[in-house]
Amino acid sequence: MNYDYLFFIALILIFTKILGLATKRINLPQVVGALAAGLILGPACLNLVQETEFISEVSELGVIVLMFTAGLETDIGELKKCGKASFVIALIGVIVPLLGGFGVAAMFSEGDPTLPTSLFLQNIFIGIILTATSVSITVETLKELGKLSTKAGNAILGAALIDDILGIIALTVVTSLADSSVNILTVLLKILGFFVFAALFGFLFHKLFTKWTDRAEEAMHRHCIMSFAFCLLFAYVSEEIFNVADITGAFLAGILISTSSKNSYIASRFDTLSYLLLSPVFFASIGLKVTLPKMTGSIIAFSVILLLVAVLTKIIGCAVGAKMCKYTNKESIQIGIGMISRGEVALIVASNGSRVGLMSDKLFGPVVIMVVITTVITPILLKIAFKSKKTTA
Amino acid sequence: MNYDYLFFIALILIFTKILGLATKRINLPQVVGALAAGLILGPACLNLVQETEFISEVSELGVIVLMFTAGLETDIGELKKCGKASFVIALIGVIVPLLGGFGVAAMFSEGDPTLPTSLFLQNIFIGIILTATSVSITVETLKELGKLSTKAGNAILGAALIDDILGIIALTVVTSLADSSVNILTVLLKILGFFVFAALFGFLFHKLFTKWTDRAEEAMHRHCIMSFAFCLLFAYVSEEIFNVADITGAFLAGILISTSSKNSYIASRFDTLSYLLLSPVFFASIGLKVTLPKMTGSIIAFSVILLLVAVLTKIIGCAVGAKMCKYTNKESIQIGIGMISRGEVALIVASNGSRVGLMSDKLFGPVVIMVVITTVITPILLKIAFKSKKTTA
Repeated sequence: MNYDYLFFIALILIFTKILGLATKRINLPQVVGALAAGLILGPACLNLVQETEFISEVSELGVIVLMFTAGLETDIGELKKCGKASFVIALIGVIVPLLGGFGVAAMFSEGDPTLPTSLFLQNIFIGIILTATSVSITVETLKELGKLSTKAGNAILGAALIDDILGIIALTVVTSLADSSVNILTVLLKILGFFVFAALFGFLFHKLFTKWTDRAEEAMHRHCIMSFAFCLLFAYVSEEIFNVADITGAFLAGILISTSSKNSYIASRFDTLSYLLLSPVFFASIGLKVTLPKMTGSIIAFSVILLLVAVLTKIIGCAVGAKMCKYTNKESIQIGIGMISRGEVALIVASNGSRVGLMSDKLFGPVVIMVVITTVITPILLKIAFKSKKTTA
Repeated sequence: MNYDYLFFIALILIFTKILGLATKRINLPQVVGALAAGLILGPACLNLVQETEFISEVSELGVIVLMFTAGLETDIGELKKCGKASFVIALIGVIVPLLGGFGVAAMFSEGDPTLPTSLFLQNIFIGIILTATSVSITVETLKELGKLSTKAGNAILGAALIDDILGIIALTVVTSLADSSVNILTVLLKILGFFVFAALFGFLFHKLFTKWTDRAEEAMHRHCIMSFAFCLLFAYVSEEIFNVADITGAFLAGILISTSSKNSYIASRFDTLSYLLLSPVFFASIGLKVTLPKMTGSIIAFSVILLLVAVLTKIIGCAVGAKMCKYTNKESIQIGIGMISRGEVALIVASNGSRVGLMSDKLFGPVVIMVVITTVITPILLKIAFKSKKTTA
């Protein structure tokens, strides 16, 4: 038996905490330090910690629990109220980066003639990569700032869910054009199936669970354990059966449990599980995935432009969507910033695309740079956006 | 990416909790139900959950955290008081099963002439397997009964530590006779080195940690996180550098932190981490390891006798040791029973032995049966021993 994972976790705990406290001291969110810890420990820098299967599965558990607790802390009334707005925000927030990414690729990338796909599809695929939002960094930052239950916080959560669905549809349409084994109709039917499943099974569980927990005089271990099992099952079924992200399932599971009378007890226990083991591993693992790409002049130029387009199109798309739904200027900017981070989602999309011949391997460098920088600046910008004085708009 | 581990953990959480509550209802410790859950889910029965690398590493984390919290809850004064007694209990509790196992093997097992080792060594090795005590089941049961800080509880903890060291020495002596690459002197020097390291580094950390935590007005996340990192590092160094069990290192780490003013806060957070994820996986994983062996008449007879000898020699050896150190009759029996469980330790010893040609593969069945039954009856017998009326002896 190999015991290296004990050493890895110890290093991750120490580095994420020390760097998190350091970034907090200079008025940045702790999550910035945790991300930096992964970069420093991983192959991009010291190469002390390798991303093993164990680390990647613990980190996946980490983001599941993170989204589950976000669900537990969500005010359903608020979320419902902003349902239509979330849809508009997500839709425009997907279309603008899609067009932006396509435009940049069409202008600056000459395509890869060795790939089996057309230049048009390759360019569209860069747009698809830019659509994916990774909400976990935003959730952690808003929790740290105590702003998760604000109007903007709820709009971001709702929009991120819908963004995930729209992203899957866009990705599937393009992939089905490149890979004949992917059928767009099947994917759409599965998404429909997910909603039916979530509504029926979710409602049933919700009724049984609240009845069961309300009957008990005080909150007990068993309530937490069964909540966790439900969250994991929901995440598993979402991902494996319906091809919807596991974290979307986990978030919905949290919402279904959030009206239980034992909710605050349950949420506090999952907070402990999260900060003591799972979320340090998750945030560090994002940095661990990063290897510094080999750069040429034209790749650097493309990286810078891709990054700028990624940031601006998401802010503009989402803020315009929010503004159309009568959010204030300040809230619209907050929402736009909350959606910038691409995180691991964009990396997964990119590696899938490269597998089916939609993306040239030399574009991995720019994508990695875009992911790292959008992920690191999101908490920094969010803190600024939520701290500045309230505008009277 | 394969998401089966989410499903596995969900099943483990549900089954360990439901069966745990069921065994509690019939007045057995919950840990019996958790062990049964693993047997039912694993290859011995339904074969729904496979023991992946992820599960085995999470379960190892589970037993590390279990022993760490046992360390946090240990009264050092009590432990010191029973130091000499623990040594006597462990020593006689190792010698008697060693002789007993050797005797059974000499009488009932004809040895395996295809192995490269002598019949004498093969018989001694059966004795070695019987020396190994797995204290985790006892710790969990005593915690559940609220008896971990009793005089008997402390004696068991101390004896289990020393048992681990004596077991390593016995195993090494025999293995070095069969395998020339194992040097008994190196092993003894390493054990010595472990004590020097634990004393020096442990003392230094203890001073720094208590000073650091005492300075803070209230307990904070960082105290828990740094405790955990220290525990993992200590466990890692024990296992990888000194060949001492990682759980021995984790237990010592817990003791070194237990005098901090923030101890009860830290301990409660690790309890949550444990019951919500790690310990269900650990207890279930013991059952997951079990495959039902193919049995013949003589193997069944040998199994029954090996089991009886395993149980009786450990109870008698440890109880005699305790009695010699002036424990009451009742406490001596409690201590003897607390040391019965062989758990995963005996399985690891057996598989190591089979690798170097010290044990015939057909004896795996009897060893597995001995491990399963000693593990399941320990919590049951402990509950009886601690519940019956106090004798006046």
